[in-house]
Amino acid sequence: MDLIETLRTTGAVRDFLPEPVGDDVLARVLDTARFGPSGGNRQGWRVVVVQDPDTRSRLRDLYLPGWYEYLAMRARGLVPWAPVTDEAAETAALEDADRIAADAANGPGGFAEHLDEVPVLLVVLADLRALAAVDRGFTRYTFAGGASVYPFVWNVLLAARAEGLAGVVTTMAIRREEEVKELLGAPAHLAVAAVVALGYPVRQPKRLTREPVESFTSVDRVDGRPFTG
Amino acid sequence: MDLIETLRTTGAVRDFLPEPVGDDVLARVLDTARFGPSGGNRQGWRVVVVQDPDTRSRLRDLYLPGWYEYLAMRARGLVPWAPVTDEAAETAALEDADRIAADAANGPGGFAEHLDEVPVLLVVLADLRALAAVDRGFTRYTFAGGASVYPFVWNVLLAARAEGLAGVVTTMAIRREEEVKELLGAPAHLAVAAVVALGYPVRQPKRLTREPVESFTSVDRVDGRPFTG
Repeated sequence: MDLIETLRTTGAVRDFLPEPVGDDVLARVLDTARFGPSGGNRQGWRVVVVQDPDTRSRLRDLYLPGWYEYLAMRARGLVPWAPVTDEAAETAALEDADRIAADAANGPGGFAEHLDEVPVLLVVLADLRALAAVDRGFTRYTFAGGASVYPFVWNVLLAARAEGLAGVVTTMAIRREEEVKELLGAPAHLAVAAVVALGYPVRQPKRLTREPVESFTSVDRVDGRPFTG
Repeated sequence: MDLIETLRTTGAVRDFLPEPVGDDVLARVLDTARFGPSGGNRQGWRVVVVQDPDTRSRLRDLYLPGWYEYLAMRARGLVPWAPVTDEAAETAALEDADRIAADAANGPGGFAEHLDEVPVLLVVLADLRALAAVDRGFTRYTFAGGASVYPFVWNVLLAARAEGLAGVVTTMAIRREEEVKELLGAPAHLAVAAVVALGYPVRQPKRLTREPVESFTSVDRVDGRPFTG
């Protein structure tokens, strides 16, 4: 599997073939993902492979409220839970979430409603004792800590490609973090970082849409000349 | 360049050959890195290529205090800025930072003291209007937002390998975030996510040290049976 091709074509996949993924296959994926970077090489990630049907259903049920809140905010043109946002507009949007949930309950459902049926369902947790938060003056539970966890999470998706797998990383379950932690028996020092779904894709993306380098890269200053290479 | 080999061998490199890196080479690296994932595909990353010698020196000067605070905490066995830590021990450790800085000023210096001399020096910023923070109830500036930025940052290091480059991601500059933002002319809605150094390595790591999968992976629960595949 070519590095550059993989980096350029690994997109979010939510539709999977019914074919199961062997534990040996998943173990190989994790065995490569674990070489990701972390502050002080502390490797503060923890993975729960959710296989039990009842635990899967309960995880889906904890995932769904955040998903409907997400949809409600998107429907009003908001960036869900953005750190900089119009709080009044967000509060108004969230009032739609129950209706959206009720509508969804009457339909066939999509990825979120069938989260319990994906071939591989992982919860990645982060050990708060191991993260270098750095901007701790702002909060003890922070953005920069993600630098020690999300490269690992992303590695799971990249490494999965070599096995013909695909999937998606979501953070929606964090909306019900305490209940997710209780479901998985997670102690206080673990935080929910992501839910990852993997499987053999119905279709592997061929071409992703991204902005060009010069649109986000500049020289010396944020308002400096665009970097074109 | 093989995907799996790259994922398994891309470690932190801080020693570079004096050979410069062409803008065309860096542009290719960023052109691949931009295919990273982000919430809603909002691609809220911004990259500043710091080339001006004076701006580089000032960035190094803003980087160093955090670096010495880091060393001071490490010297006392602490995880620097961990979200869960012994605050009294940390405060005591930070008192050593000035002495460590003074000692360093009398030595030849290492990566941090020569940060302004690395072949490629990037500052990655994150647009707080574009991140899905999700755990916003906790804070508006959060861990989960890192899921939309740090895969991109990690992609820079991975894509660099195909060009024979190597480097390191650091978050230390966030300790002086406001001053870094002022230096780069960054508006309020941008946060400093990382400083990335790249160059042709004196030595490319061959073998990284990581814990085995079963040490961090379990089935159904955090305290479930270790997942061995």
